[in-house]
Amino acid sequence: METLENPKEVQRLADLLRCEGKRIGVVPTMGYLHEGHLSLVRAARAECDAVVATIFVNPTQFGPNEDLAAYPRDMERDKKLLTAEGTDYLFAPVKDSLYPEGFATRVEVDRLTDTLCGASRPWHFPGVALIVCKLFNIVKPHFAYFGQKDFQQAQTIRRMVLDLDFDLEVRVCPIVREPDGLAMSSRNAYLSEEERKQATVLYRALGVASELYVSGERDAAVIKARMAETIGAAPLGKIDYAEVVDYDSLHPIDKLEGKPVALVAAQFGRSRLIDNHILGEPFPSAKM
Amino acid sequence: METLENPKEVQRLADLLRCEGKRIGVVPTMGYLHEGHLSLVRAARAECDAVVATIFVNPTQFGPNEDLAAYPRDMERDKKLLTAEGTDYLFAPVKDSLYPEGFATRVEVDRLTDTLCGASRPWHFPGVALIVCKLFNIVKPHFAYFGQKDFQQAQTIRRMVLDLDFDLEVRVCPIVREPDGLAMSSRNAYLSEEERKQATVLYRALGVASELYVSGERDAAVIKARMAETIGAAPLGKIDYAEVVDYDSLHPIDKLEGKPVALVAAQFGRSRLIDNHILGEPFPSAKM
Repeated sequence: METLENPKEVQRLADLLRCEGKRIGVVPTMGYLHEGHLSLVRAARAECDAVVATIFVNPTQFGPNEDLAAYPRDMERDKKLLTAEGTDYLFAPVKDSLYPEGFATRVEVDRLTDTLCGASRPWHFPGVALIVCKLFNIVKPHFAYFGQKDFQQAQTIRRMVLDLDFDLEVRVCPIVREPDGLAMSSRNAYLSEEERKQATVLYRALGVASELYVSGERDAAVIKARMAETIGAAPLGKIDYAEVVDYDSLHPIDKLEGKPVALVAAQFGRSRLIDNHILGEPFPSAKM
Repeated sequence: METLENPKEVQRLADLLRCEGKRIGVVPTMGYLHEGHLSLVRAARAECDAVVATIFVNPTQFGPNEDLAAYPRDMERDKKLLTAEGTDYLFAPVKDSLYPEGFATRVEVDRLTDTLCGASRPWHFPGVALIVCKLFNIVKPHFAYFGQKDFQQAQTIRRMVLDLDFDLEVRVCPIVREPDGLAMSSRNAYLSEEERKQATVLYRALGVASELYVSGERDAAVIKARMAETIGAAPLGKIDYAEVVDYDSLHPIDKLEGKPVALVAAQFGRSRLIDNHILGEPFPSAKM
């Protein structure tokens, strides 16, 4: 695996690869990789000729009191994991090269970002849209891989790609879970042993929603209340939302029709954790 | 000259051209072409292997009470002019293909757009940044050509290209003027005979600013007052601004140092006209 730091160098590489007829797949990450990230690399590996992973802890998607400085980092371990999965290139820019002095441009995706995580973290999706826009212009990929765990992020990027005519396809890959159901996240590393145990309430709340939906419940209020109740049983958790939204608009719905999505978010100690399930799809069973 | 309407078709063409080692130059326009536009085509022709002109009257850069519906159009004449200049491709999309249902993305360039035209037309530069961003992703040019007449637009796009890592160079070409000094603009077509005569006050105001600067005047207030006075002599004109700003920041300056730019804007009948001059550069003489 070759590591590149300079955006211009990556652009020259991308031009070369594209002209050789190679399909480029990009996996944007903030590093501290887990099985979720690696599943994206595998999906890219299966579909593309050149797999480019990016590692950049993007400051613009963190709020003033969030965990930017503390965000877990382990570049050497990440490189080993990426190499083992057959990643061809790693783009790991230094911060100053991406946000030069006088930086003034914003990319915002309206409507999809004012609910759910966007409601409590209004800076987050503009930061994500901006960095992803930049990475697309640098890596020039044919395919870009994101995880369904960050469902609102994936839908936001899909919309941006369509609206700004990016010449690529967005692939959204299934959530990868720990044996007890907890969705994989770099932020799980912050959890104390007891927080880690209790954090499975997010997964279980989605299981409750799935069961209710399968058994015919179509009243969002009922499902939301039961999810909140499940999360509320964890004394170390502080719920942010337990919501049911429309798949496309991401706006809350009262009556479940079409393709509803259940989403949950809660704070456990220093970690803000999120999870979701598209109602009607098979619910993943926990192994323990 | 080949005319293309479909963004995806243009992207396939761009990939092909780039892989043949051809340098692509794009000249984005709203049509109703004049010598100013054609000078951009000539600059592209001199520097590039494939010249792509675009014609699209972009609705998002017009305000609710502006001249979108009335904006002058003459596609057949435009095609003849472009063909005569050796343009290779014309991208002329239909509106709905660029702003599909559910469109939600904004691109904004802060700071550079809150003064001058941005102060009185706050919707304008977000509209410009958005469409130019889209056109860059569609045409994938190596070079993009803009006129200095729209100085604030050119600086805004330069900033956006840098910030979003677009893999291209922005070229800003000199203002092209009528024999009496009036800067060429598609909106000159709206002027009555008398308005057309009086509109030269904009050019003359910049001439006054240039003379004052060359003779050593460094107080912006003096230069602004004399420009406003010159424009005020035209009874059919309604001044919007007569300003001196810093070349890079576009923010008004009190004392002229570095690279100051004088800019003027005024309404003549239905036409809002703008013009500018970089102080210290040779002032273009009128032919009549």
